[in-house]
Amino acid sequence: MVLCGGVGAARLLTGLVDVVDRAELTAIVNVGDDMELHGLHISPDLDTVVYTVSGQVSRERGWGLEGETWQAMDMIRRYGGADWFSLGDRDLGTHLFRTDRLSQGRALHEVTGDIARAWGLDFTILPVTDDRLRTMVTVAGEGEITFQEYFVRRAHSVPVSAVRFDGAERTRPAPGVLEALSSADRIVVAPSNPAVSIDPLLAVPGVADELRRRRDVVVGVSPIVGGKALKGPADRLLVELGREASALGVAQWYQEIVGTLVVDRVDEALCPAIENLGIRAVATETIMAEPGVTRALARRVIAPDR
Amino acid sequence: MVLCGGVGAARLLTGLVDVVDRAELTAIVNVGDDMELHGLHISPDLDTVVYTVSGQVSRERGWGLEGETWQAMDMIRRYGGADWFSLGDRDLGTHLFRTDRLSQGRALHEVTGDIARAWGLDFTILPVTDDRLRTMVTVAGEGEITFQEYFVRRAHSVPVSAVRFDGAERTRPAPGVLEALSSADRIVVAPSNPAVSIDPLLAVPGVADELRRRRDVVVGVSPIVGGKALKGPADRLLVELGREASALGVAQWYQEIVGTLVVDRVDEALCPAIENLGIRAVATETIMAEPGVTRALARRVIAPDR
Repeated sequence: MVLCGGVGAARLLTGLVDVVDRAELTAIVNVGDDMELHGLHISPDLDTVVYTVSGQVSRERGWGLEGETWQAMDMIRRYGGADWFSLGDRDLGTHLFRTDRLSQGRALHEVTGDIARAWGLDFTILPVTDDRLRTMVTVAGEGEITFQEYFVRRAHSVPVSAVRFDGAERTRPAPGVLEALSSADRIVVAPSNPAVSIDPLLAVPGVADELRRRRDVVVGVSPIVGGKALKGPADRLLVELGREASALGVAQWYQEIVGTLVVDRVDEALCPAIENLGIRAVATETIMAEPGVTRALARRVIAPDR
Repeated sequence: MVLCGGVGAARLLTGLVDVVDRAELTAIVNVGDDMELHGLHISPDLDTVVYTVSGQVSRERGWGLEGETWQAMDMIRRYGGADWFSLGDRDLGTHLFRTDRLSQGRALHEVTGDIARAWGLDFTILPVTDDRLRTMVTVAGEGEITFQEYFVRRAHSVPVSAVRFDGAERTRPAPGVLEALSSADRIVVAPSNPAVSIDPLLAVPGVADELRRRRDVVVGVSPIVGGKALKGPADRLLVELGREASALGVAQWYQEIVGTLVVDRVDEALCPAIENLGIRAVATETIMAEPGVTRALARRVIAPDR
């Protein structure tokens, strides 16, 4: 099973679905960056995983759908409405369906299953929790704002002094989450942002405990390569939150829950320092620029000893 | 000022804006067929008025917008979601903007003003109330359902035994509504469905009293021509609710609030019976198939004595 944020995790999953038994594969996805906007419940990471693994994701943008149009957004702009979060017309269909089903009392994991099946996905995708959990970010000069306000509205360009997972202590893991964690042969921590994509998963009561218990089978993939995040602000966030922007910083972040860390070949020199933390370090190609690399990385994370 | 339902009222307004001082024109619009769907606040009659008078309405469909696309709807259908109420992508922009502003605590009349101004409309459009009012329809074999479930989902093809305006007694007229009613030189009851488009306006406390007080300046236009509704189920509804499907049935329905009723030429023979009810009857061309007729009808309703 795989602990997932958005884009990086989704890409690794496109490899995993080719190299593992999909009936045994469970993706547990971050919901800390979910938001309510214009009355809609939006789950960006769940959608990125579904759209990407089903091959529908926009190649050009890396998020949202191919063949997207922006008619609703043009109207919102005409009215002077909030247009900082781009919602394509096709993507809106997903949010409308989800919002409708949730308002009828269905749980987020059920609606997620409906959506995944509609795209022909035959592995399990679960939100880490059906309950409300919101990643809040304290930024310089503004105080605490929601994750999407930080990530999209401020284009993650403002320094962060703290991250908090609002409501996490009152959440319960979605049905199947703890079962998947306790029974999986291998638990993969995807190359997502540790501070704002993976940590919200760990904030759901029971998840971090189970990971600590099963640390030996947990394999992380560093989202930092050569000191830089491949996408997004993971490198700056690590520094702002007191670590270094490197695969070693990632290893320190995950020290309690990860038994093995896969790092990029360019970071091979960091492997001894990582091993000093009691984490097995494996260096391989991790930049998933084409499907062959992605599949090879997927094979490596499920069998890092080979 | 004009009491409005949807399509018929919107068409009459396209004539009125050409023949009256628009600064003096107020349209007071039904909100009984508003609905919440997929988390969005939808105001079909307000939108029909705005889209039609601004010349944006789809000529082909008579509702919704020109240049509409259906990408969101296709996705909802893919997911097996509720697709009985068609929402175009452009139209969705309006609903998203309205829902967002309402959720920020703005009143419906304020948001309506924002939307009307964005389309360049320079007369006043007011929802009859900012408060929640829902037209409920009792249909054979099913009990009470919402207006849109009756009108769209059942294609108004089921017999109706009762109409109720849920919440009406707790509503207040939107700011400006009673003022417009008390000060208008002329009050027009548009050729809308009496039972489900105009009656909800009268159900808002204060509105019917003011109309009774000003009955002498109130001019109705019959939506029934030659015993048939031009659009929708007004003819059947009149019969199902105990009146006859004719301009005379309309006159009886409006007897307390209308001083003058404009009927179509084909119904000229009904004028004496209407006058027997104490209502002045005026016969003229009322089928607004082209702009010249619409403008002539508009001139007639503001000066029926000419």
